[in-house]
Amino acid sequence: MISFENDYTTGAHPQILQRLSETNFQAAPGYGMDPYCESAREKIRNACGCPRAQVFFLVGGTQTNAVVISSMLKGHEGVVAAETGHINVHEAGAIECTGHKVLALPEHSGKIDPGELEELLRKFYQDESYEHMVFPGMVYVSHPTEYGTLYQKKELAQIGEICRKYRMPLFLDGARLGYGLMSKESDMTLQDIAAICDVFYIGGTKVGALCGEAVVFPNQNAPRHFLTAVKQHGALLAKGRLLGIQFDTLFTDDLYLEIGRHGIEMAERLKTLLKEKGCPFYLESPTNQQFLILKDSQVEELKKYVSFSVWEKLEEGHTVIRLVTSWSTRPEDIERLGELL
Amino acid sequence: MISFENDYTTGAHPQILQRLSETNFQAAPGYGMDPYCESAREKIRNACGCPRAQVFFLVGGTQTNAVVISSMLKGHEGVVAAETGHINVHEAGAIECTGHKVLALPEHSGKIDPGELEELLRKFYQDESYEHMVFPGMVYVSHPTEYGTLYQKKELAQIGEICRKYRMPLFLDGARLGYGLMSKESDMTLQDIAAICDVFYIGGTKVGALCGEAVVFPNQNAPRHFLTAVKQHGALLAKGRLLGIQFDTLFTDDLYLEIGRHGIEMAERLKTLLKEKGCPFYLESPTNQQFLILKDSQVEELKKYVSFSVWEKLEEGHTVIRLVTSWSTRPEDIERLGELL
Amino acid sequence: MISFENDYTTGAHPQILQRLSETNFQAAPGYGMDPYCESAREKIRNACGCPRAQVFFLVGGTQTNAVVISSMLKGHEGVVAAETGHINVHEAGAIECTGHKVLALPEHSGKIDPGELEELLRKFYQDESYEHMVFPGMVYVSHPTEYGTLYQKKELAQIGEICRKYRMPLFLDGARLGYGLMSKESDMTLQDIAAICDVFYIGGTKVGALCGEAVVFPNQNAPRHFLTAVKQHGALLAKGRLLGIQFDTLFTDDLYLEIGRHGIEMAERLKTLLKEKGCPFYLESPTNQQFLILKDSQVEELKKYVSFSVWEKLEEGHTVIRLVTSWSTRPEDIERLGELL
Amino acid sequence: MISFENDYTTGAHPQILQRLSETNFQAAPGYGMDPYCESAREKIRNACGCPRAQVFFLVGGTQTNAVVISSMLKGHEGVVAAETGHINVHEAGAIECTGHKVLALPEHSGKIDPGELEELLRKFYQDESYEHMVFPGMVYVSHPTEYGTLYQKKELAQIGEICRKYRMPLFLDGARLGYGLMSKESDMTLQDIAAICDVFYIGGTKVGALCGEAVVFPNQNAPRHFLTAVKQHGALLAKGRLLGIQFDTLFTDDLYLEIGRHGIEMAERLKTLLKEKGCPFYLESPTNQQFLILKDSQVEELKKYVSFSVWEKLEEGHTVIRLVTSWSTRPEDIERLGELL
Repeated sequence: MISFENDYTTGAHPQILQRLSETNFQAAPGYGMDPYCESAREKIRNACGCPRAQVFFLVGGTQTNAVVISSMLKGHEGVVAAETGHINVHEAGAIECTGHKVLALPEHSGKIDPGELEELLRKFYQDESYEHMVFPGMVYVSHPTEYGTLYQKKELAQIGEICRKYRMPLFLDGARLGYGLMSKESDMTLQDIAAICDVFYIGGTKVGALCGEAVVFPNQNAPRHFLTAVKQHGALLAKGRLLGIQFDTLFTDDLYLEIGRHGIEMAERLKTLLKEKGCPFYLESPTNQQFLILKDSQVEELKKYVSFSVWEKLEEGHTVIRLVTSWSTRPEDIERLGELL
Repeated sequence: MISFENDYTTGAHPQILQRLSETNFQAAPGYGMDPYCESAREKIRNACGCPRAQVFFLVGGTQTNAVVISSMLKGHEGVVAAETGHINVHEAGAIECTGHKVLALPEHSGKIDPGELEELLRKFYQDESYEHMVFPGMVYVSHPTEYGTLYQKKELAQIGEICRKYRMPLFLDGARLGYGLMSKESDMTLQDIAAICDVFYIGGTKVGALCGEAVVFPNQNAPRHFLTAVKQHGALLAKGRLLGIQFDTLFTDDLYLEIGRHGIEMAERLKTLLKEKGCPFYLESPTNQQFLILKDSQVEELKKYVSFSVWEKLEEGHTVIRLVTSWSTRPEDIERLGELL
Repeated sequence: MISFENDYTTGAHPQILQRLSETNFQAAPGYGMDPYCESAREKIRNACGCPRAQVFFLVGGTQTNAVVISSMLKGHEGVVAAETGHINVHEAGAIECTGHKVLALPEHSGKIDPGELEELLRKFYQDESYEHMVFPGMVYVSHPTEYGTLYQKKELAQIGEICRKYRMPLFLDGARLGYGLMSKESDMTLQDIAAICDVFYIGGTKVGALCGEAVVFPNQNAPRHFLTAVKQHGALLAKGRLLGIQFDTLFTDDLYLEIGRHGIEMAERLKTLLKEKGCPFYLESPTNQQFLILKDSQVEELKKYVSFSVWEKLEEGHTVIRLVTSWSTRPEDIERLGELL
Repeated sequence: MISFENDYTTGAHPQILQRLSETNFQAAPGYGMDPYCESAREKIRNACGCPRAQVFFLVGGTQTNAVVISSMLKGHEGVVAAETGHINVHEAGAIECTGHKVLALPEHSGKIDPGELEELLRKFYQDESYEHMVFPGMVYVSHPTEYGTLYQKKELAQIGEICRKYRMPLFLDGARLGYGLMSKESDMTLQDIAAICDVFYIGGTKVGALCGEAVVFPNQNAPRHFLTAVKQHGALLAKGRLLGIQFDTLFTDDLYLEIGRHGIEMAERLKTLLKEKGCPFYLESPTNQQFLILKDSQVEELKKYVSFSVWEKLEEGHTVIRLVTSWSTRPEDIERLGELL
């Protein structure tokens, strides 16, 4: 059985495990106050080009989204997101659970459109009864999106300008950021993202770590006592060192980018193979998630040898499936898939 | 510098790291659906003597308390706990954040008294306006408590009977359960706990794991769709394997108890040493947390060589400090402390 | 200035004020335990043909929706509603504030379609990752809808069957129920509604009362300690008598239906007038809310003499406005409007 | 049967009913945008000596407390209150339901002690782990308290200074403010209260209105979009006129104070009577709530002729009962009670 199920099927990049072993018996304070976390923070500040950035390490994506969003919104505000945004679909209502509405915008291959965002805001404040409605208080984008697509720098900058105009923070969910940064279609660096967004997170779980996401507030703009908000939401790891060591390793010698590069290279090979085989793509994704349209019978057959996600049932016997590469995908996995197809 | 700061200062028990390495490249499904989790669940069921138990792995204690409590309470109910209970003091209001009040009972060396619990319940239902008050809907005990103390089996059974009488679940927070089970003053096994409680968790973070707590519903009595509640609270780890592998290791060849035994042995040596040195204890603790009363000047002096927690300022220049042993405490650490005192 | 702004512009039906005066000095217990409330409950039970119904009086619609929905949903569930449903748009996120998502269905003149509801449910349980999503846990319909339209008995019964099949309660928001029951296009009685729905409320505020909504659980199926939920949400009126006296009056000699009848008669005259004048309707409404499409210049002109709601800006200089009749609309108000147009 | 059960047993002061009748057919905008509310606001600003005050009308006390507190606290903060404070006992957990902890201080005849408040704050920030605890973010006092007692101006000013020092708003719950202002032991005017507090409410429900509480932010310091918070919590009355007319009447010709004066005069007569009869008082209350200690047998006997609240069971066959006077208590009610005793 070969696995293209997702980018969190295997353990951690070997350098991470090695570093965990090396440091195992060194005593350190808890809750992110350890020297590993401090070192990792400094490296992330450098990588982002933001010497004053505040960096917090959380365990997983859903909790990160919930903590960041709920601590930055006022009670009467909601968060704007694509209708396919992770927070709107696959987080079991984690945002609503903190008391806030997700205000859905149409999606375009997983992305929101700056024009439609501005239109939503314009209409909101034009509505005579807007005080009876949920205020748009923040914009959430995922990059890469849930469909593997990427914002171009110009697009993200436009969204950022609209946010500033309406005094709303812009939050970028970078659960798969490593793959986004290394995509051939990316025209943004980490510094660009840090310059445009008010807050974003650098995903570890899906990019070679056992767990962990690094939240970055580029301009010392974290909500006061953000650590207490993290604790209150059960997202403050006692052995914060586990996160610090991992991110310190990922941001040493550009390992984070190297992992991204490998995942993208594997995805490119996969795309080439699938195109050769004539598989129809559901959409064009430049990152490590690829969406195919198969006949239901093909899906059943393929399931016997390959693990993958069933994404969506289409009409008349067709299904969208998702194949994902990662830091641990090997060239031979793709070759084997080629033989099977 | 030697550390008695807490039981989560170091990494993980070496067998855990080794097992993480061995399994690192084996692909497995996410979210706890992997074979490691399944194996760990089965071993925990055996250890608890509950073949039908439902076992869930969460990342940390605060989130575990919040998810378990909020998913078992009705909207109009609160949870009864000792005033010093972790959920009432040191979780930044995580329970209230889910909408529920913590109903505090007086503490007796960290424990609640069955008689006072029954009195609270009797008075509640006797009050003419109880429908305008928060209903006691659940009882929370920590074992060992935040002060290292233990419930005797008879006491816990009494609390359990009161809970059944009033149809409230009894929840035991076992963040440090391993040390409790191996204390010389313990008269309870894991099976006893599983027989008395409606839900409890077996702490991993403080007993040799990198992270992780195993929630056990002994009688297939988990709330429906508990997994979705876990996800909604951001407590469902994508790489659930990280938790499964750890608990599978901890419950192989009684490693969990062995770690507890070691922590207790080190604590006993520490107590002996401190008694020899004439240090006054704040209270008598039979587990791995020891509380001393020092003069403020002594505290300042000791801080130069030893890391520990300052627990509470007392009157007139005295302070309560806490020293904690763990799986990774070495006999030489205690010897060195002896030299320093 | 004549007002068609809404159905809560004036005070209360004179019989209500008179009854408030008559009873003013009679002492009565608070919180709905008074004899007026008891009498009103009995009359509502009779009117609904449900001798075992539980009836609670709350103050306003938004709080009623929030209390009913949040006390009937489990934590992992959300409520299904039309995208134009009041709870999804004009209640400032009151449902999300209680921790639950509103799952929006497309609207058809303000109504949900039974087929689309069933499709949503079928797709939900077919999705491999439904445990990571918000469970549809309840269906909310408003009748009349926010656009004044009505469900036919057959439609509502279909929705009810789907709800039973998926074990979800069906909740009907009857803020304007009186006008709905007396519409010429209505084929449902109060008894029909009580037979189909699991819970509904009979709106008082918009049908002649100063304030107040009567929540009916037809089959003794209120959540346990619902009164405490009402109190917790700040929706339990101390002088419950104010609500009891009003509903007792409304359900004496069919005053509630008489008020509905008058509002409908005024609406019919209004429609006739507007059709004579050639005003284009935005949609066909059989109740007391009428939606017109005017040129922006006409809107500005009309505003000088008539108060009404601006509903929505359309393209190219057109606007949807809403005119509403009520228990206090007088024939001469409509005549005067005719002169103005 | 004569009633001393509470101060909300009867309807409204006759002048209020009369004014409701007079204005009944005048159309007015909803949601507090009507001219009656505007006039009432202006009169309240004058009475408070705060020309810039923002005034909002809500329906009841519990909702007012929940909306004010939750909209002024940050997520990581709780509200400090006496352990007997209404929000801590008799509001069914309404504050926790909004996600915030009530931090209880000891009570002294229902009041908090400024010294103990300062000590709590000092200890909090001295605690090494305060970031893991709920921050004290606001102080709540009730005046008169739940035991009818009053803060002296000096005491309240001290509390206010402590609040300013720690940058916490001070909130005064004036559900029975009218009786407090007219007590012979009061040394505070409404202007004093407005000068000391950051926010307070003037209770209507218990001081002659059918319902309604007026929230005052003396220095234009309401949270932004407070109206939306009110709406979101279901506390925005559609027919806001009902509240506006009532408060406009109460603040015309000092009716509010006149009602308070009458309640106090009746309470004084009651106290004199009870002292003559040798009834032991539970505590000394200078306002309209009086607490007596009776034998259980006396309680049973009295219940046959008088309605009152059973407050608390004491040891050995004694019970605390509460007798309350109000705007509608008549001298003959007290005479009749004298005959019965």
